[in-house]
Order: sequence, then structure tokens, then C-alpha cells
Amino acid sequence: MSGTATGFTVNGTVMHAPAPGEIEVLPDALVLVDGDGTIDAVLTAGHPGYARARTSARNSGTLRQLKEGQYLLPGLVDLHIHAPQFPQIGKALHLPLADWLQQHTFPLEARYGDVAFAERIYASLVDTLLANGTTTALYFATVHIGSSKRLAELCLEKGQRGLVGKVAMDNLDECPDFYRDASTEAGLAETRALIDHVWSLPGNGHGLVRPVVTPRFIPSCTDAMLEGLGAIAAEHGCHVQTHCSESDWEHGYVIARHGKRDTESLEDFGLLGRRSVLAHANFIDDGDMDIIKGCGSGIAHCPLSNYYFSNAVFPLRRALEKRLHVGLGTDISGGPHPSLLESCRHVINASRVLEDGVDAASPAGGRGVAGSHVDFMEAFWLATAGGGQALDLPVGVIAKGFLFDAILVDATVTDSNLMVFDDLDTAEDVFQKIVYTASRNNVRKVWVHGKLVVDKDGKPGAVHS
Amino acid sequence: MSGTATGFTVNGTVMHAPAPGEIEVLPDALVLVDGDGTIDAVLTAGHPGYARARTSARNSGTLRQLKEGQYLLPGLVDLHIHAPQFPQIGKALHLPLADWLQQHTFPLEARYGDVAFAERIYASLVDTLLANGTTTALYFATVHIGSSKRLAELCLEKGQRGLVGKVAMDNLDECPDFYRDASTEAGLAETRALIDHVWSLPGNGHGLVRPVVTPRFIPSCTDAMLEGLGAIAAEHGCHVQTHCSESDWEHGYVIARHGKRDTESLEDFGLLGRRSVLAHANFIDDGDMDIIKGCGSGIAHCPLSNYYFSNAVFPLRRALEKRLHVGLGTDISGGPHPSLLESCRHVINASRVLEDGVDAASPAGGRGVAGSHVDFMEAFWLATAGGGQALDLPVGVIAKGFLFDAILVDATVTDSNLMVFDDLDTAEDVFQKIVYTASRNNVRKVWVHGKLVVDKDGKPGAVHS
Repeated sequence: MSGTATGFTVNGTVMHAPAPGEIEVLPDALVLVDGDGTIDAVLTAGHPGYARARTSARNSGTLRQLKEGQYLLPGLVDLHIHAPQFPQIGKALHLPLADWLQQHTFPLEARYGDVAFAERIYASLVDTLLANGTTTALYFATVHIGSSKRLAELCLEKGQRGLVGKVAMDNLDECPDFYRDASTEAGLAETRALIDHVWSLPGNGHGLVRPVVTPRFIPSCTDAMLEGLGAIAAEHGCHVQTHCSESDWEHGYVIARHGKRDTESLEDFGLLGRRSVLAHANFIDDGDMDIIKGCGSGIAHCPLSNYYFSNAVFPLRRALEKRLHVGLGTDISGGPHPSLLESCRHVINASRVLEDGVDAASPAGGRGVAGSHVDFMEAFWLATAGGGQALDLPVGVIAKGFLFDAILVDATVTDSNLMVFDDLDTAEDVFQKIVYTASRNNVRKVWVHGKLVVDKDGKPGAVHS
Repeated sequence: MSGTATGFTVNGTVMHAPAPGEIEVLPDALVLVDGDGTIDAVLTAGHPGYARARTSARNSGTLRQLKEGQYLLPGLVDLHIHAPQFPQIGKALHLPLADWLQQHTFPLEARYGDVAFAERIYASLVDTLLANGTTTALYFATVHIGSSKRLAELCLEKGQRGLVGKVAMDNLDECPDFYRDASTEAGLAETRALIDHVWSLPGNGHGLVRPVVTPRFIPSCTDAMLEGLGAIAAEHGCHVQTHCSESDWEHGYVIARHGKRDTESLEDFGLLGRRSVLAHANFIDDGDMDIIKGCGSGIAHCPLSNYYFSNAVFPLRRALEKRLHVGLGTDISGGPHPSLLESCRHVINASRVLEDGVDAASPAGGRGVAGSHVDFMEAFWLATAGGGQALDLPVGVIAKGFLFDAILVDATVTDSNLMVFDDLDTAEDVFQKIVYTASRNNVRKVWVHGKLVVDKDGKPGAVHS
């Protein structure tokens, strides 16, 4: 209903995780969405205004009634996506990192100088993520300004909350000849140009799409670039994203070059702010966490790609204990799956293996890090409200004052492994089953900012709220 | 075509893994299946008899032509499933093991004394596994003879290659009062009764369904039970399954009770044979591996459930180096997903985390077990040919002499995350993408023993080869 004065009301069972480790199931709730796409109220059956609100919505033709077996959940927030790597999901992962990067990833990213190629791939990517229920996406594009602009436009056209960064990478020692910024100055100028472009897009008045200052990571940038990007971020107050302390090599590289750790270096360059998101951060220690917390920055935990490229498991439990802002990233295509529900499963698995360790030849209790495991409630919080908190955006919870970014999950879909047994499963069981077993085809409708942007059961072309 | 004299021929691109780490893609191949469900020949385009074979099949109306974007793969072999736990997939996994077992799993299993309940759940389970492409399934049922028989019958009725065990558990110290064999003698007698029943099922002439001697694991059985089951296995030459060295607790329990390790104890009871499959085996060392190899027994590696219940990662690389028989198990419901392609992904992830380790605070190179990682080619071998080898059944490869257990994977399915880009992906890339991203809805047809048992695109009720 975005763009009209009228709101609408969704009636059905709401499931969300308003706080880490805390889930809420609201059977037969009414979610009142105003004409601006904001949740005006969530009423449960006992509320004195419930009957009147329902009748009013029905009479005005704005009641959206969920069927038996359908559930309303907050939209998923993906904090780390390499948009150009989308066609590479699920391939080349048998290769060593150097080959994956030099033979496949960089040559693929270099192709996005061709805006027509970018248009084709990025359109498919945004459609794919929306179809999986990803309502907010934080994207690394490529070094190319033209295709980066196009990605932002496609998010706006398709109605996805998209945060898009033109990648900055100008360090001749670490970037391939065929794929890097033409110069430091060019990289900075194009970063500014993307910011201006995104904010001036027609129809982007309420900031559905936002620009992001995006140094690839410290190794691929000169100090001049990092300093310049820090100044741009401060000037525009915009989001920042980069990789931080991802692997042994990267962690050691920064210490060797700057004589300090990633977090210290990023802070000194002005790149750690309230709207900064650090991908991975597997090697951060308590001191790093204090720096990140002090700056109010967020972390994109990417458990699936970490198995491939990170040499260790992110200390999630410690970060949650310190109340850092943490959400999840698919890290396409280092992570070979576009679904954040899939990421939830990997978060849980990774946390359990961090707790127990791996090598049976080591003594029990001495293999891992005690107390590390998280469960589906914490994982789902990370994928929704945690992501919203990291981005400083009011999304990820179905509650008054939040934007209505939501998905309809249908457990009655044929050819699905989400199986509910009415006589055996509680509503909380169903929620857990959704986190563990729902597939893309269980996500039937997707709303972003109050607008219905995916409707798999609707008539073709008839997308409305 | 099982049950008729005529065979048929499938024409399309074949993808399989005939040996560990070795994949083969055969574009536009002809797979000739005889009237008994055995592959008679696989002809590639250069073969001198290719054109004649294709014409002959077309003229006789027995040509099954795959479309563009469809691929023929061997059916998946699941070596470890707790059938009664099926309704519990994706729930109760946030609980400690003791609660998971005592409050949820044992009470659920106890319900299968009711054959009507079993009928309902088992029918749904077999349908679900077939729909995911699992053509061969090795099942733990429950202690109940009636519902165990019914599971075997359902496999036969639905056309799944099913190996079914009535679970034996008679140790009063370790089994709950409400769920165990009435006595050692009763457990042994019912094991024999299941064997007789399965072999006498009408229509089971070629052994599509087989009985399995199934001590739950050493802790839940008395020595008398283990000895009796070993004798039954020897007498009938049938398959055996049990859990082996799964966790710290279980591994230590056997040493404390028997003064030896699981493999030694199982061998002494006559439970390690060519057709024995040991679930998990995470804590086996080189000596255990030598015993298993000497007996020709197999291992069901269950990477997903291991994250929850096993305290360590199975040393897969070492087992492959020693040429042990290893396949994969979903371990429903300790493993919260019914798909073996999903298991392939977890095999890879688990192997990588075993190699790299988990704790960033430990020094690089000292966190894990160097050289442990496997790739999609090894994972897919485990899920197909490896499983066939472990069971001593000629399945898992699309080659002359193997039974035609196969699946049709369609990469053109709407609402799927298996995305092929024709100008960017080689056939080998597509194979890797299938392993990493195919979902249940990409599996369109399933054949077992030459019979088409799932046809999602066919007319309802018109299932044929």
C-alpha cells in the first residue's frame, strides 16, 4: 500500500524474535499497517480493540487474512552479499582460495564494467533474494560505478530495501591489474557519485535504497583511500561496510602493515561508526569487541562462508554477551546459498562445533570453547532484529513503530520438507521447524515497507498489498 | 518397468561419481535399462551402437527423453534414519541431549506400539524421502514388531529400496521403563520374526526390502542380546546396523563396561560383517579402522546430527585413505533435514572445520587436523556409490550391471535456488551447483529398481517408467 494513503491489516499467527534468545508467537493477531508502511499496532485476541479493528479492516476491504498453516514472520536481513558473485553460487568451491579468487571471482567481478551484464545478473539476484524472504540486503557491488548505480535502481524498482556499495580497491600490490579502481581519486569520486545518485533516485524519498561506503578490506586499499572513505562517511553520515579480521592471513596482514589490529586501524580511518557493518570478524578479541561496541558498529556473521575461507569460527556467544550488534550474512558466493534461513542453520551448527571442538583425539572438554552454542531463537533474532539493529533501521520485529517488512511462510506447500503434525507440534515447535526446514517455496508473500513485492500465489501482474 | 518383460532407455545428460573424488558427466547419454531394472548399457554419443539403440527405443515407445536443463543422477542412499523420529525433524534441538532423549525422543518412539500411528507417520516418511531422491534407506524402526513390519511393507508398496530393523534394547539400566524390549528373548524372537516376515512379503522376490539386525547401541543392550543378535546375523547373513563410538559418553561407557572399544566389542559379538553399517564412528582410531576394514563393514557418516550429539567430527579423510566403506546418513531426527544432498553440504562443511579447527585464540595450523577437507565430488560419491558399497548392493552408479536407481534433477524449476547460467557454467559447474543448491522440488522423477516411483510432472495416478 506504499504510495497510497490507506493502510491494511494482516490477520494471522505472528512469529518473531524480539530479543536474542526470546521468541514470541501471537496466534490470530492483527497487524495494522499504516499508509506509510509502518506498523501502527499489533493486537492479540484479548485486546479490547481487537474485534472493532478486525471488523473495520474487513469492511474497508483492507483485511489480509492468513490461512490455516500460514505464518507471518519478519523479513530477513542479509548483512553481507557480494552481488556480482551471484552466478558463482555453488561452484568453484573445491578450489584453493587463491584459485577461487584469481581464476574465478576477480575475473567474474571484472565483467560488471558491462552494465548490460550487470543488469541481467543483478535483476536475477534481487528477485532470488526476495523470493527467499530477504527484505533487506547489504550489498558489495563491484568497482564499477555504472553497474553499482544499476543495482541500487533495481532494488528500488523491485521494492527491496537495498544498501549498495561501490567497492573501493586501489592498492596496486594486492589488486589484480584487470580489476581495481583507476586511481585513489577516481575511487573516491565514484563513491561520492554513487551516494549522490542513490539519494536522488525518484521514488527513494523514504530511503528504501541507501548508499554504502565500501572499502573491500584494508589489504586492497591504500591508506589514502581508507582516509578518504572515512571522510566521505563522516560527511554524509552514511553506512559503511568492509571485511574485518576474517582469516589468519588478513588478520596478520593488517598487523604487519599498520602495526595494529583491523578494528584499531578502521577506527583510526574513521570507518567505524554506528552504521558500519564489519563482515566476519572471526579473529576479534575482547579488546576489538570493546572498540566495536564503543563505536556502535555492527558485525555480519557469515557462518557458511567461514567454513571455506576463515580458518576459525566467529566467537558469537562472546559477542552476544557483550551486547554487540550482530546479524547474519549469506556472503554470496563464498557462502553457497542465498537463504538466510539456511544461514540460521549454519549459525547453530558453527556455534555447536565451536563449543565441542573437532578432533576426537584431543581430550573431552579441551577441544572447543565451552558455552559457545546458540539455538534457533538466537539464530532467528540475528537474521531479523539483529540485522536491523546493526543497520540502525527499524526492521526485523513485528511491533508498533517498526516498518512492515515481513514474509508469509506456508507450511502446507506441496513438495516441501517443512512438515507440521497438528496433533504433535506446538506453535513454538512450528517456529523451530520453519527455521530448520523451510525452503524458498514455503515463502509465499513478501512485503517491504508495507508493499507486497512477492506474491507467489497471486495472479500474475496483480501484485498489491 | 519392473514386473514387465520390456525395458526402457533414458536419453539425457548423466552425472555421477564412480569413485571417491571422481565425477563423470556424460552429455546426451543413452541409459538402457532391462526388464529386471538393471542397467544393460550406458552409451555416449561416440559409441557405434548409439544411433541404432536410440532409434530402436524411440520406435518401440520406450525412449524417455530428458529436456534441456534436466539431469540424470544416481539415486541417493541414506545409511542412517530413525524412522519413528520423523515428526520430530527440526524441533526440540535447543534442548540438552538428556531432555531431547527422555522428554521427546523416547516418548515419541514409544507411540509406535500403535500400528495406526506408525502407518500414518511411516507412509509420510517414505513419501518424503522418495520425494527428496532417497532411493535406498536404512531404517531403525522401534522396538515394536508390528509397526516395524508395516514400515517394511510401506517401502515395498511405495517402491523404495528399504532396509528395516526392529530396534533391540533390553538393558534395564539404560532403557526407560516405558520403552524397551519386554525381555531379551522377546527381542530376539521378534528380530527373527521380522526377518521371516520381510523375506516372505509378496512381491519382494528380488529383495527390494530387506531385514536388518538392529541393536540400538551397546549401552542399551545386554550382552545376552548382543550375542543373540550376532548369532541371528550369522545364521541369516543379513544386514546389521548399530551406533558405534558416537560421543565421549558412549565411547567411554563401552570401555568401562566391556574393557574394550566399540569395534572390538561388536566384532566379538559377531556384529561386524560385510553387511554391517556403523552409524557415526566419530571416535574410532586407526586400530578401530583396521578392525572395520578387516570385517568389510561400513560406516554411516552423519555430519549434521554430529554437530548436536557427537562432541567431535568424524575423521572422514582418514577413513577414505584407508579405503573403508563409508556412506552418508541424515540421522533423522538428530539430523534435522531429510535430504542427502543437504547431508553432502554438511559433509563438506564438517570436513573443512575439522581441517581448520574452531578457536581463533589457538595458533594457526594448530587448531584442526591438516588435510581433512573433502569436496563435492567426494561428498556425492559418499551419498551414492559409497552408500551402495557399504550396503553391498549394486546401486549408486549409472553403469552397466548396476540397478537403475536414479533421479531426474531439473534446473529449470521455478522457485528454486539451483540457478544455471548457460554462458557461464560448464557441465561440471552444474553438477557442483546441484550438490550445493538443489532442493526437493528440483527432484522431479525418481526410479527405483527400474520402476518410476515418483513423477512430479506426470499425470496423477499415471506413474510408470
